[in-house]
Amino acid sequence: MTLSSQPPYLPLPAGEIGLLTDLYELTMAQSYFSEGIAGGATFSMYVREYPPDRGYLVAAGIDDALDCLEALSFDTDSIEYLRSTGIFTADFLEYLRDFRFTGSVRAMPEGSLFFAHEPVLEVTGPVIAAQLAETIVMNQVQYQTLLATKSARCVDAARGRPIADFAARRTHGSEASLKMARASYLAGFGATSNVLAARRYGIPPTGTMAHSYITSFDSEIEAFRAYSRMFPDRSILLLDTYDTVNGAHAAVKVAREMESDGHRLTGVRLDSGDFDALSRQVRRILDDAGLNYVRIVASGGLDEYAIDRLVSAGAPIDMFGVGTRVGVSADAPSCDMVYKMVSYNGRPVMKLSEGKESLPAAKQVFRHHDPQGMMSADVIGLSTETPSSGEPMLALALHDGRRVIPPSAIADARQHVADGLSRLSPAHRRLRQPDHFPVSISEELSLLESQIRGRLTAAVP
Amino acid sequence: MTLSSQPPYLPLPAGEIGLLTDLYELTMAQSYFSEGIAGGATFSMYVREYPPDRGYLVAAGIDDALDCLEALSFDTDSIEYLRSTGIFTADFLEYLRDFRFTGSVRAMPEGSLFFAHEPVLEVTGPVIAAQLAETIVMNQVQYQTLLATKSARCVDAARGRPIADFAARRTHGSEASLKMARASYLAGFGATSNVLAARRYGIPPTGTMAHSYITSFDSEIEAFRAYSRMFPDRSILLLDTYDTVNGAHAAVKVAREMESDGHRLTGVRLDSGDFDALSRQVRRILDDAGLNYVRIVASGGLDEYAIDRLVSAGAPIDMFGVGTRVGVSADAPSCDMVYKMVSYNGRPVMKLSEGKESLPAAKQVFRHHDPQGMMSADVIGLSTETPSSGEPMLALALHDGRRVIPPSAIADARQHVADGLSRLSPAHRRLRQPDHFPVSISEELSLLESQIRGRLTAAVP
Repeated sequence: MTLSSQPPYLPLPAGEIGLLTDLYELTMAQSYFSEGIAGGATFSMYVREYPPDRGYLVAAGIDDALDCLEALSFDTDSIEYLRSTGIFTADFLEYLRDFRFTGSVRAMPEGSLFFAHEPVLEVTGPVIAAQLAETIVMNQVQYQTLLATKSARCVDAARGRPIADFAARRTHGSEASLKMARASYLAGFGATSNVLAARRYGIPPTGTMAHSYITSFDSEIEAFRAYSRMFPDRSILLLDTYDTVNGAHAAVKVAREMESDGHRLTGVRLDSGDFDALSRQVRRILDDAGLNYVRIVASGGLDEYAIDRLVSAGAPIDMFGVGTRVGVSADAPSCDMVYKMVSYNGRPVMKLSEGKESLPAAKQVFRHHDPQGMMSADVIGLSTETPSSGEPMLALALHDGRRVIPPSAIADARQHVADGLSRLSPAHRRLRQPDHFPVSISEELSLLESQIRGRLTAAVP
Repeated sequence: MTLSSQPPYLPLPAGEIGLLTDLYELTMAQSYFSEGIAGGATFSMYVREYPPDRGYLVAAGIDDALDCLEALSFDTDSIEYLRSTGIFTADFLEYLRDFRFTGSVRAMPEGSLFFAHEPVLEVTGPVIAAQLAETIVMNQVQYQTLLATKSARCVDAARGRPIADFAARRTHGSEASLKMARASYLAGFGATSNVLAARRYGIPPTGTMAHSYITSFDSEIEAFRAYSRMFPDRSILLLDTYDTVNGAHAAVKVAREMESDGHRLTGVRLDSGDFDALSRQVRRILDDAGLNYVRIVASGGLDEYAIDRLVSAGAPIDMFGVGTRVGVSADAPSCDMVYKMVSYNGRPVMKLSEGKESLPAAKQVFRHHDPQGMMSADVIGLSTETPSSGEPMLALALHDGRRVIPPSAIADARQHVADGLSRLSPAHRRLRQPDHFPVSISEELSLLESQIRGRLTAAVP
């Protein structure tokens, strides 16, 4: 039984999720199975280093990861394929045929802000189950977190002006386009052009018109007239097919024709050229014609840096459409998120690989706020600690592979992001070289870490 | 009826593909529908500018795009959702309920090399159909082309050493992970760690072991022994969990134990540190132990530039595993691929937007080779031209929305990439600042372009 009211939108058929994994997860599982190694393990997922210019991260894809784990299985075709490779034993394949994920997951709720080194999700369970969770959980959380984070930066940069997601054609596939719409909405965007995402996630759909629409008419103004005839109360006319300023004059003419029919042109869209200069010219043309209600939308190559420059310069742009650069998180299309074993059979473990050291044991993140409610510091401690202060950030989400709390409603997750950002100081939200948020390690964890490090460096020949 | 022997792996259920579109495609279609605008249109898809340091592009995702167009439809839920928005008329929704893509598509075959400005795919059909194709075709072709291109650059850099795709956890979603495995295999990779991709596309699966496997045992050498016991003929031992050089000595011990049982250790894997120095140290340790058959695999942060440095330095690495940087095409996660109307109702059209000018009319790319079979120049001409020389690159793939040629077998597409690259001069394959391949415009196209430009600039008020 699932706690959600409708079946989740899985990225793959449930019976194929088992195979969406790196081969080594299955060969290691085969070895554990044959060796009779069935102890409990905990894996911790965290980001080792901030992507460039990031001062915080917005957790997204957590609920998709949990949905995938709840559904994870191997259908008959998957088992037959594995058999055909000749790598696996017959008894292990029988085990996989009945496999379901029986671990527990503690995670930060969708939309939580988190910081480098902090576990955002921990899986505890039989070592095979916890190992088989790795690839799909990483696959779902990493990029959605990057997309939500970059989108939140755009929202900050736009200082209240609405932003719409126009990225569908540029994301890495259709699944990524849906998740971009969702992640950016969580982060505070107002709408998406992606109709399927709008339907699935209840995001307001939005759109304007393309250059091709204009060029399929004999003249630009005929195209403007046809569109506003069809959508008299939601027309945004694209100005730059031939020349933006000429386009603005044509839009004025059409807006006046609309007024005489009792309608109002919603907006105009700039899609190329110098947005600062053009928006001022177009604003003046509109205002001179008494069309101060017509809004100016800008799209094309925008990201948080470009939006910030335009808003700082005072460009009269009322709404931004962002696509390419945000939809692929262009300046940070990947990040150093890892999934590391931190305990096995009750024994805390860590790795010492050069530059890739991990912290041992199941952990908790304790968040502290100042008297004004602003986030002041995080402490990473052991999951067993009960400090006198600090709000624990990880909550049990799956037990024995089943949801114990329902997936976040998208509206709640969106509110959670907004709340988090309102409590994070501007110094950590700065677009360039933000201050690092203070994250420290509890005394208990620190002690454990040095004990284990001592034991490991002594033991290694 | 479809020409392929088995149903294609669509990224979405067929009935949802219609909604995987930008809202404006549907509002423009509504306007065309209500205005009775039903002329034929041609849209041309091409890359306006090379991504940084790219001298060629490898077409990938073409077959997925064609599959999506062949399947494109609106299921009942989609129609009901569109009705609920209040944007569309009842008769248009009835039209969509029965909609199927009835256009024709001319495209370069999967795996073709192509260059900036060249149409890689053209859609001709009723304007609504051709317009509704835009988002999904762009979504599928753009990123797969980027992944195939970056992968081909890695293959060039590795100069014959095999490369495996390890990117599943870093790509933008599960769909992207499958397409990364496929695109990189097209480009010449030898294997993938992604088991579902291996099954779907018939790619050899590969893998080693993770640090977590090591840390779940009491000691590294116990982990090595257990793994090689399970997989005596396919063990690749991960050396860097605690210390790479110590790990190499442990691997030597295990390899000798394996020899006494009549087995051979396949390889060892380096995953952190200075690969050049470590590979030499590890090679020496292996060779000193008479284990010259044990291969060295390197993975972790690799891309074409890192591979090139290691190979140029003579690092004794036998195989590379690439993940993150290639799986997101890190230095070019998006490109300037566009889908532009070039003709409407038999009338060639173009746009003049600043820096975004398009070439009018349905086109063909004619590829020329020198007497040695090397590619010498491409000419972009009108689709109606029949020049005396040059191989036409675009072939009819869909007619009336149905395949007229079957999807490429992956082995054929892979061979097609290899053939293309072998005919492309090293100057255009250089990893940094490659020479631009000569692409010119035919006299007929050039004449048409200046006629239309003259007409448009005269006509615009």
